Amino acid sequence: MLKRRTDLAVEATQLWQEQAGETTQLRGVQARDSVREGYKVTTVRILDESGAQALGKPVGTYITVELDGLLRREEDAFPRAARALAAELRGLLDLKEGDAVLVAGLGNRAITPDGIGPKAADYTLVTRHLVEQVPEQFGAFRPVSALAAGVLGTTGMESGELISAVVEKTRPACVLAVDALASRSLRRVGRTVQLSDTGIVPGSGVGNHRMALNRETLGVPVIAIGVPTVVDAATLACDLLSEAGREDLDPAALSGAGENLIVTPREVDTQVGDLAKVIGYGIDLALQSGLDVADIDLLLS
Amino acid sequence: MLKRRTDLAVEATQLWQEQAGETTQLRGVQARDSVREGYKVTTVRILDESGAQALGKPVGTYITVELDGLLRREEDAFPRAARALAAELRGLLDLKEGDAVLVAGLGNRAITPDGIGPKAADYTLVTRHLVEQVPEQFGAFRPVSALAAGVLGTTGMESGELISAVVEKTRPACVLAVDALASRSLRRVGRTVQLSDTGIVPGSGVGNHRMALNRETLGVPVIAIGVPTVVDAATLACDLLSEAGREDLDPAALSGAGENLIVTPREVDTQVGDLAKVIGYGIDLALQSGLDVADIDLLLS
Amino acid sequence: MLKRRTDLAVEATQLWQEQAGETTQLRGVQARDSVREGYKVTTVRILDESGAQALGKPVGTYITVELDGLLRREEDAFPRAARALAAELRGLLDLKEGDAVLVAGLGNRAITPDGIGPKAADYTLVTRHLVEQVPEQFGAFRPVSALAAGVLGTTGMESGELISAVVEKTRPACVLAVDALASRSLRRVGRTVQLSDTGIVPGSGVGNHRMALNRETLGVPVIAIGVPTVVDAATLACDLLSEAGREDLDPAALSGAGENLIVTPREVDTQVGDLAKVIGYGIDLALQSGLDVADIDLLLS
Amino acid sequence: MLKRRTDLAVEATQLWQEQAGETTQLRGVQARDSVREGYKVTTVRILDESGAQALGKPVGTYITVELDGLLRREEDAFPRAARALAAELRGLLDLKEGDAVLVAGLGNRAITPDGIGPKAADYTLVTRHLVEQVPEQFGAFRPVSALAAGVLGTTGMESGELISAVVEKTRPACVLAVDALASRSLRRVGRTVQLSDTGIVPGSGVGNHRMALNRETLGVPVIAIGVPTVVDAATLACDLLSEAGREDLDPAALSGAGENLIVTPREVDTQVGDLAKVIGYGIDLALQSGLDVADIDLLLS
Repeated sequence: MLKRRTDLAVEATQLWQEQAGETTQLRGVQARDSVREGYKVTTVRILDESGAQALGKPVGTYITVELDGLLRREEDAFPRAARALAAELRGLLDLKEGDAVLVAGLGNRAITPDGIGPKAADYTLVTRHLVEQVPEQFGAFRPVSALAAGVLGTTGMESGELISAVVEKTRPACVLAVDALASRSLRRVGRTVQLSDTGIVPGSGVGNHRMALNRETLGVPVIAIGVPTVVDAATLACDLLSEAGREDLDPAALSGAGENLIVTPREVDTQVGDLAKVIGYGIDLALQSGLDVADIDLLLS
Repeated sequence: MLKRRTDLAVEATQLWQEQAGETTQLRGVQARDSVREGYKVTTVRILDESGAQALGKPVGTYITVELDGLLRREEDAFPRAARALAAELRGLLDLKEGDAVLVAGLGNRAITPDGIGPKAADYTLVTRHLVEQVPEQFGAFRPVSALAAGVLGTTGMESGELISAVVEKTRPACVLAVDALASRSLRRVGRTVQLSDTGIVPGSGVGNHRMALNRETLGVPVIAIGVPTVVDAATLACDLLSEAGREDLDPAALSGAGENLIVTPREVDTQVGDLAKVIGYGIDLALQSGLDVADIDLLLS
Repeated sequence: MLKRRTDLAVEATQLWQEQAGETTQLRGVQARDSVREGYKVTTVRILDESGAQALGKPVGTYITVELDGLLRREEDAFPRAARALAAELRGLLDLKEGDAVLVAGLGNRAITPDGIGPKAADYTLVTRHLVEQVPEQFGAFRPVSALAAGVLGTTGMESGELISAVVEKTRPACVLAVDALASRSLRRVGRTVQLSDTGIVPGSGVGNHRMALNRETLGVPVIAIGVPTVVDAATLACDLLSEAGREDLDPAALSGAGENLIVTPREVDTQVGDLAKVIGYGIDLALQSGLDVADIDLLLS
Repeated sequence: MLKRRTDLAVEATQLWQEQAGETTQLRGVQARDSVREGYKVTTVRILDESGAQALGKPVGTYITVELDGLLRREEDAFPRAARALAAELRGLLDLKEGDAVLVAGLGNRAITPDGIGPKAADYTLVTRHLVEQVPEQFGAFRPVSALAAGVLGTTGMESGELISAVVEKTRPACVLAVDALASRSLRRVGRTVQLSDTGIVPGSGVGNHRMALNRETLGVPVIAIGVPTVVDAATLACDLLSEAGREDLDPAALSGAGENLIVTPREVDTQVGDLAKVIGYGIDLALQSGLDVADIDLLLS
């Protein structure tokens, strides 16, 4: 099992390999690189319990899209990124026409690096009420509802409890849950999106939700959309030392130190805003057929 | 039945009397004035179907507290107002020690006069998770959860649907629902709070919720806490004319005119902020025994 | 002189004509209708003191653009509106290449109908520091700075005093001042923009600034960009009555009534958001040559 | 000269001593500990150029108040902290009755750890306009104005340029400038306030202002009020290692590493909110005689 904390399967795979040595084979796991709309995509499949044990993550598919160009504000970077996310998301979804979807934004909007979930929900095309009330105009849309699940301290309810209540009441065919993650790599923070069909695991992410959100707890498939927005302080210390060629240290040696700190990119507010928008648009493109980015601009405004 | 729109039972009673003539007796309704902590309190009881028909409101108790001093920022006005609301609220609640309560803030936080519900929820002492997780410190508190129910256009779900989902999941003994109302009197706007044990009626309020929130729909008692923050435009026109001695006109004659307008006091943002705070504190004092305003200051900060 | 309050020259002209009778000629004023990018444009020129006296406004040019399609969210409505504003604005500006401009957003961001100035400033391409610091990349841009002038109660300084301080310090060639206005017509509220080369007059607008902002007070030309977001209550009452065919009343008869009220469209928050964006983009297109709407999207994000 | 970055004179003194060895005497610097209202106060006086050289800071007085109890929410912690700040602040101010003061909040409100300046300005009692307009009621107050100086990227103007413009226009007797700082100690972040009569030095703080704000640049005395809300990443790495007993490393060895990162306490949003409020109240108590905390509560609401 890994001693260093990461919510990204692609990092867990690298860490395992670093620890096991390059010649040892990681069994029960497949990884594959590809390119989509100009962005690098890595797909890690954890196939069985041996893979799950090795990486400390449930069996399932984990897709990482690296959105570097987005941050450099290259032309067309935004629509390409939204389309890339939409295409990868569609590969994880198993929806029939008209199946309803709930988009759940996890995390605390008031804390910048934890606010990506609620902010992505702001860019979701919410159609459930329109499909019902104005079918002549919106009948061709998939019914989508959205929920910023709030924060335990201000609601008294776990996010998972609230989402579970809404799922039981409104019976969507699938939940998309957007959340902030922790990464071990400074390089990935604020520029990577991980899609996974395994749902949200308790204790991961920035806000440390306590309840798993997955098919077992909610009764419907849960696609997790995660963005690393923080690194932990011990990981940072080791990386800085290593970069400086001073010592190759295991962060476990610093266990507990700096656990009340968060480390974010200086530009975290811009990054979270940009990524929330591209995720919201990616969700919209994946869920509603026949729309392009300009249509969503118009429908959201 | 009344032709003019008001969400306040005290106004409905006056309107009925104006229309019926002073000598006619309104049957099935009792009204009584009193003073609490220096504020005028009017209690209207609709006793039976004849009263309900006459006033166009369900059988039940409607208490109006007029908080004029609050706006003049008299000394002690705030704690007196919070205590007055708490005392009247306790008279409507029928809770045993340890019974859980859900506070639901209705309305759209982004539209000033409709934001009083979500803002009042911000001042609610949320304790449900603490009672459970830190019983040694919070065991003596009543478990309270809070929900800003969001807006149909951004969630795809009716507020009532979301609250109903949460009630089914978390089983509180009672719901307190805070909402913005319409008044027919310029004088009452932004300075009056109505408490009622009849819940929320569809189509009333500023945001025009479609689903009733009451014991029938939620399965538990619902106390409505309403604040008039708007007057309708037709009512305003008639009142202005009448004040100017020009014409005593029935607003029904202007029916439909100005229905896309809202009329609010110039100071609506300050008023809504002040009233949301006093309502939140009033709820806290009513639900948690042994606290005073200074304790809540400390616990909320 | 007009007895009814309006900040729009086009309305003042109509009111004068209504009061004077159709056959009387308004001297010292020229009005002309045209169409720009599909939007109706009315240009009123107050030519001399007789015109200024009659309409109660300074000598100068007042251009009204009616942006109805924008609110109906017609396709291309936004870029057409931004280009229309930019073209009319360029007609009022007398700038040489490289002349610096200060964009001043007047009003209180926290009060929805008064927030259009600060919000429009958010959409201004601010380039002054870039032209100076990164000339190799931004040397071709006009230096533009922006200022949300805040509110007397939170700064202790008049907006005009702050703007005047900045003008003296940074010496722009021109000031563009964006502000909320009052209209007498429900129809124009939230869908009209008035451009004028006369600056801002004390006591007009929603927030009632006390200091004139014009060439006399600032030492440089001031272009005012105003949007009616409120009507006054007395005007509303008279209009509603008149629509209902009940009475053709002069609002002066209701003078003083409802002066602590504001009347806004129910959708004022959306309208103010949309108009602030189109004004910001219009300013950007007018000030920076060679850009289109898509460029501004990219530069602002 | 120190190689490690700190904006706190008290830390610079400690660092110098660590580097020079305990037996070496730091000349030109006096340091003294005391207690005020239960909080630890350290006063460092840099007396001459030799002291200034050694610590890399201008000649002047630097007072550090450690507000640990505030974060533990001890009873009376808030009013004691506000009074302690006020008392120390009064010691640095040299004001005659009626002298005007400008409070300048530096930094970017949208970035949590950089937002303390603008947020402290929100708690300033702004009286300048009231003293002038309502002298019968406010004539006994000192005229105070406030300015959240905004951010270069959104205004095109350096904070210092804007403040300088306002100072020239309104001629206050003194400027109080509130800003976020960087600390080298995790322990001080979010719980310490430094008051200094030397103004703001370019390149210090979180936001890295380019222009000095002091008597030389503004023409009036500038009291800086700084709060460390971040540590730099290299400092953090060294501290974590040192705590873990692994290595006593000079952060200079990591120079440049992690410079695009910010490290903040997990609770930075609460801490910044609490400290902004206590600083605002401290300023109010220092500037207006005869007020207590409850008066300010009432006047600010």
